[in-house]
Amino acid sequence: MARYDFASDNTAPAAPEAMQALAQANAGFASGYGGDTVSARAADLIREALDADAEVRFVASGTAANAVCLAALCRPFEAVLAHEHAHVCTDETGAPGFFGQGLGLIRLPGASGRIDPAALAAPLAAPDVSHRQPAAALSLTNATEYGTVYTSAQIRALVEPVRARGYGVHLDGARLANAAASGFDLKAIRTLGVDLLVFGGTKAGMPPTEAVVIFDRTLARRFDARLKQAGQLPSKGRFYAAPFIGMLEDGALLRHAAHANAMARRLASAMPFPVRHPVEANGVFVEMDEARLAALQAKGWFVYRFLDGSVRFMCSWATTPESVDEIAAALRTLA
Amino acid sequence: MARYDFASDNTAPAAPEAMQALAQANAGFASGYGGDTVSARAADLIREALDADAEVRFVASGTAANAVCLAALCRPFEAVLAHEHAHVCTDETGAPGFFGQGLGLIRLPGASGRIDPAALAAPLAAPDVSHRQPAAALSLTNATEYGTVYTSAQIRALVEPVRARGYGVHLDGARLANAAASGFDLKAIRTLGVDLLVFGGTKAGMPPTEAVVIFDRTLARRFDARLKQAGQLPSKGRFYAAPFIGMLEDGALLRHAAHANAMARRLASAMPFPVRHPVEANGVFVEMDEARLAALQAKGWFVYRFLDGSVRFMCSWATTPESVDEIAAALRTLA
Amino acid sequence: MARYDFASDNTAPAAPEAMQALAQANAGFASGYGGDTVSARAADLIREALDADAEVRFVASGTAANAVCLAALCRPFEAVLAHEHAHVCTDETGAPGFFGQGLGLIRLPGASGRIDPAALAAPLAAPDVSHRQPAAALSLTNATEYGTVYTSAQIRALVEPVRARGYGVHLDGARLANAAASGFDLKAIRTLGVDLLVFGGTKAGMPPTEAVVIFDRTLARRFDARLKQAGQLPSKGRFYAAPFIGMLEDGALLRHAAHANAMARRLASAMPFPVRHPVEANGVFVEMDEARLAALQAKGWFVYRFLDGSVRFMCSWATTPESVDEIAAALRTLA
Amino acid sequence: MARYDFASDNTAPAAPEAMQALAQANAGFASGYGGDTVSARAADLIREALDADAEVRFVASGTAANAVCLAALCRPFEAVLAHEHAHVCTDETGAPGFFGQGLGLIRLPGASGRIDPAALAAPLAAPDVSHRQPAAALSLTNATEYGTVYTSAQIRALVEPVRARGYGVHLDGARLANAAASGFDLKAIRTLGVDLLVFGGTKAGMPPTEAVVIFDRTLARRFDARLKQAGQLPSKGRFYAAPFIGMLEDGALLRHAAHANAMARRLASAMPFPVRHPVEANGVFVEMDEARLAALQAKGWFVYRFLDGSVRFMCSWATTPESVDEIAAALRTLA
Repeated sequence: MARYDFASDNTAPAAPEAMQALAQANAGFASGYGGDTVSARAADLIREALDADAEVRFVASGTAANAVCLAALCRPFEAVLAHEHAHVCTDETGAPGFFGQGLGLIRLPGASGRIDPAALAAPLAAPDVSHRQPAAALSLTNATEYGTVYTSAQIRALVEPVRARGYGVHLDGARLANAAASGFDLKAIRTLGVDLLVFGGTKAGMPPTEAVVIFDRTLARRFDARLKQAGQLPSKGRFYAAPFIGMLEDGALLRHAAHANAMARRLASAMPFPVRHPVEANGVFVEMDEARLAALQAKGWFVYRFLDGSVRFMCSWATTPESVDEIAAALRTLA
Repeated sequence: MARYDFASDNTAPAAPEAMQALAQANAGFASGYGGDTVSARAADLIREALDADAEVRFVASGTAANAVCLAALCRPFEAVLAHEHAHVCTDETGAPGFFGQGLGLIRLPGASGRIDPAALAAPLAAPDVSHRQPAAALSLTNATEYGTVYTSAQIRALVEPVRARGYGVHLDGARLANAAASGFDLKAIRTLGVDLLVFGGTKAGMPPTEAVVIFDRTLARRFDARLKQAGQLPSKGRFYAAPFIGMLEDGALLRHAAHANAMARRLASAMPFPVRHPVEANGVFVEMDEARLAALQAKGWFVYRFLDGSVRFMCSWATTPESVDEIAAALRTLA
Repeated sequence: MARYDFASDNTAPAAPEAMQALAQANAGFASGYGGDTVSARAADLIREALDADAEVRFVASGTAANAVCLAALCRPFEAVLAHEHAHVCTDETGAPGFFGQGLGLIRLPGASGRIDPAALAAPLAAPDVSHRQPAAALSLTNATEYGTVYTSAQIRALVEPVRARGYGVHLDGARLANAAASGFDLKAIRTLGVDLLVFGGTKAGMPPTEAVVIFDRTLARRFDARLKQAGQLPSKGRFYAAPFIGMLEDGALLRHAAHANAMARRLASAMPFPVRHPVEANGVFVEMDEARLAALQAKGWFVYRFLDGSVRFMCSWATTPESVDEIAAALRTLA
Repeated sequence: MARYDFASDNTAPAAPEAMQALAQANAGFASGYGGDTVSARAADLIREALDADAEVRFVASGTAANAVCLAALCRPFEAVLAHEHAHVCTDETGAPGFFGQGLGLIRLPGASGRIDPAALAAPLAAPDVSHRQPAAALSLTNATEYGTVYTSAQIRALVEPVRARGYGVHLDGARLANAAASGFDLKAIRTLGVDLLVFGGTKAGMPPTEAVVIFDRTLARRFDARLKQAGQLPSKGRFYAAPFIGMLEDGALLRHAAHANAMARRLASAMPFPVRHPVEANGVFVEMDEARLAALQAKGWFVYRFLDGSVRFMCSWATTPESVDEIAAALRTLA
């Protein structure tokens, strides 16, 4: 029977703090569509965590959250600058184009999931021509798809030339907690020129929920209608807000993320195969041939080959040191 | 302070059976995107409840579920036949047109939320002309927006001429449980020519979840990609599947719906204002002037005027006889 | 054999002035995509005719021109206010929703094709709620679908409350020439708060061409990319620009429109059936039963019943007094 | 002053045969929206040229024609296989994604504009996974963007594995006439498994017009509504059909294309710079550094660097031997 412990950070169950908050929020009648006190409280906690006077909405899907944000920043005949292996480019079935009616993606290179600042120059310098979709926004991901973490300075270097042209900025924070636990200052985001942030709940150990944080409040106008039309304005909003309360109120979010990151480091240390990217968050990417991957899977461990050809091992709040040691032992027999 | 007891059936908390199943499903690691055993079990229970060999998917949003279904049945230059006050026409911010890139809605009249079969004749007979969006699908809602329930025969009468032209059929079952508790045979649906059913969880007392039931399996091809692109393929699928297990395994779904319906009848019986529509499900629609509505709201009861001008009172699994008696007493002081 | 003389103003051939300009423009090589001298000259002539410093683009389709404009003024989760029988609502196969990814249309009543100013009040006063598409723009048509002509004052009365809320304004001028020939001052448009005008060529007697006039130059940014993506940036732009030169340089546009209007009045005068709408432009709408319409068609005259149930007779630059007298005689035999 | 003789094949004027047919078609009243005798005659001529019993429509824009076809073959959550430098991928501002609501493009390599058959294998073998857009159609271009011409056998080799999986096939024939003049058998197309062909008029020397040829007649259902909604069903259809009559009736189409091809060969022969791709149609692609390109442009010749880094020289029906010799002389002074 396949074990999904390292397949993804979304194969883990939800953390007890989140589940307890969910159970607690499930009391009595509540106004719908985010107008409830649970949603208000969760939004306050997020504003506090970010030290930002931003609008906050809770939605069910990270894919949709990202796509709605990109569609808010970019018209169909424009394009989003993103890392070529960003989730929005590779793992969302073209959702940005679906929600944004064909908006383009300009895929940029960069080592270990971080956009190479030099790669921005050409698309930013390109003159508007009618037959190409010009850039209108930048999409960043922190932590990145390859388990690395942008520093504030690195983000600033990417955002600055983009904002200088008047373009918008989206931050995919599906693993923002892991970035924060790795040293990325959440309270700095509001100074970095980010317009829209998707603050991830699901991969951080919550039941499905993502917070859309609207730093640029001019974008907030009619945002509820935008979400509702996109199928992302939950009637029972408290179910998406409550987990954030449980995870933010007592610091569980960062605590769990720090654990996930530590588990990744533990696995990297014990890894008998070459580790391809710096282990700064909760993922370990390993060079491993097909036969060995198959053998590992045959032992019951479900992990898979990622976009850059390495094999990905993801840790989560629920990853135990024992399971790390167990898979490391299995890996050693293959090395 | 406003009380939301009768504002909608989505202001209620989730029922204990659903919450318990959620908690239970939250154990160990699980495959993502619906490939988990919880999702499989829930799908089995739905197939059993419907006595149908159908594909089942679990999604977060009823609005999105409906829109995805309509987009699957209807191309952008075609239109969906629906009751003029159907949720897809009036309460979803144009989601069908958003998901379906401008697909049209042909709004049909009919007493108390049920489409008048005679109203189908004209659009079905209309020749295809290039400057209008011709019908390609029928969307029905059971129980209807006005708390009435179609019989199987009534649905058959509407579906038959539609299918005779080769068009598809969608059933919005946001309140299917209430219809079932009112006598509508769930096992008959598969004989009625329905291609796609949205089997509602949220309004039936679950945390946010809806089941998309694909009776016409040719429509199931690449449906996961369709859902994923639309932001409706949850990575942690078990959270959307589990509530259905809790509610279906021991009959809680129908039991709770029957209770909601009974509460509506209780309220209707005690209602000092004229009731406008037959009370066959969990809603009571009442003729009430603006002053009296304001007075009721001033007493803390949040209810609102609906599309047909009546004031709507919705009951749910969580509605207590005491609260019915309480609001009835409040209403009597206003009559 | 069917005669199409009165079926529509697009059944006429193109006027000699337009065709001659087309032939003349077809000389030598020219830059593509509107960067040619013919396009520049035509744009100058339009700016002169409108006494406005506006951007001008030439496109192939009035349906697309309207839809592109509405999509520029209105996001998918918003709606356009328009007369319920406006071309954008009834005769364009849902193109606004297709180009605008589901943008809504709020259909307003009003006698003889003109929006009743009182009908604007409710949608403009409606509070933003997440489940409805709120108004974001007004679309007017001059001359209207029923052959009436808005005065500047009437347009101002409709535009003012709309602009007071910050919404945009689109003017469908498929028959703007007819309106102008009827006394509507083209040079007043720039003072009326119109953001985007579609200045019709096709129905005015040109080969297929429409000019999109962008009064609000902030909307002009990347408009060529918008058009190109929408399939409305012709590579051989001079073919769409040239007809405007031929028709504007020597006043042919208004001369022909005045003729068309005169033919409509001639027909109205001779009409033995009740004329339903004021004859202010080039159409005559007549009350006529089905048998008589069929009899007229049997005589070879192709005209058809319009949206309000009347039978429509359209005149064009090519309508001859003789053909008016001929059809009038045919009509008298049926009266 | 810039000369556009070699900038593109759409900088040329329309050929006299096309213009004459246009003038001739412009007589008397005609039914709208393609229901006229001119459109019928042109469609017959196209069917004859293709020896195929296909549906034919005439539209204004090649970009739109391609995008409408791809949207007919491919749902938003699916993708089109195309050469990475195909016009649909690089020069249409994302029109396929706009018309197809985010449909994906899978960009394939291949020398000189022809898809490498081996490159098809991977996307065709890829299992359906929910987070990627799977292939649903193949788009070919003949003649290609690099002035090469697929043989029937080469097309067959690409189409066969695609059709074996049940996917559709689109042929962008913007330069089909050049391909035909180069030996590609138009009458073979119907045997090659092409579902939808865009038979180019504009670049072949006509005023703006493209014929959409629907080989798979099941796709023709409601195609007029599809076109109308997309702004591609011209009311005065004869203006788009007539040029095809003038060009097909007496063989002008192939004659002019043969001339254009001959001019390209003449230029290639005289070219002092390395020619990068086989000259099989009407384009010559040349290796030339930036300084020399600038010097050429400074002499008044407007040509530009293409996607592969070469400088493109396009010939057309209107290219004269004298102008070829003239630019060749200019080039020699730079070599």
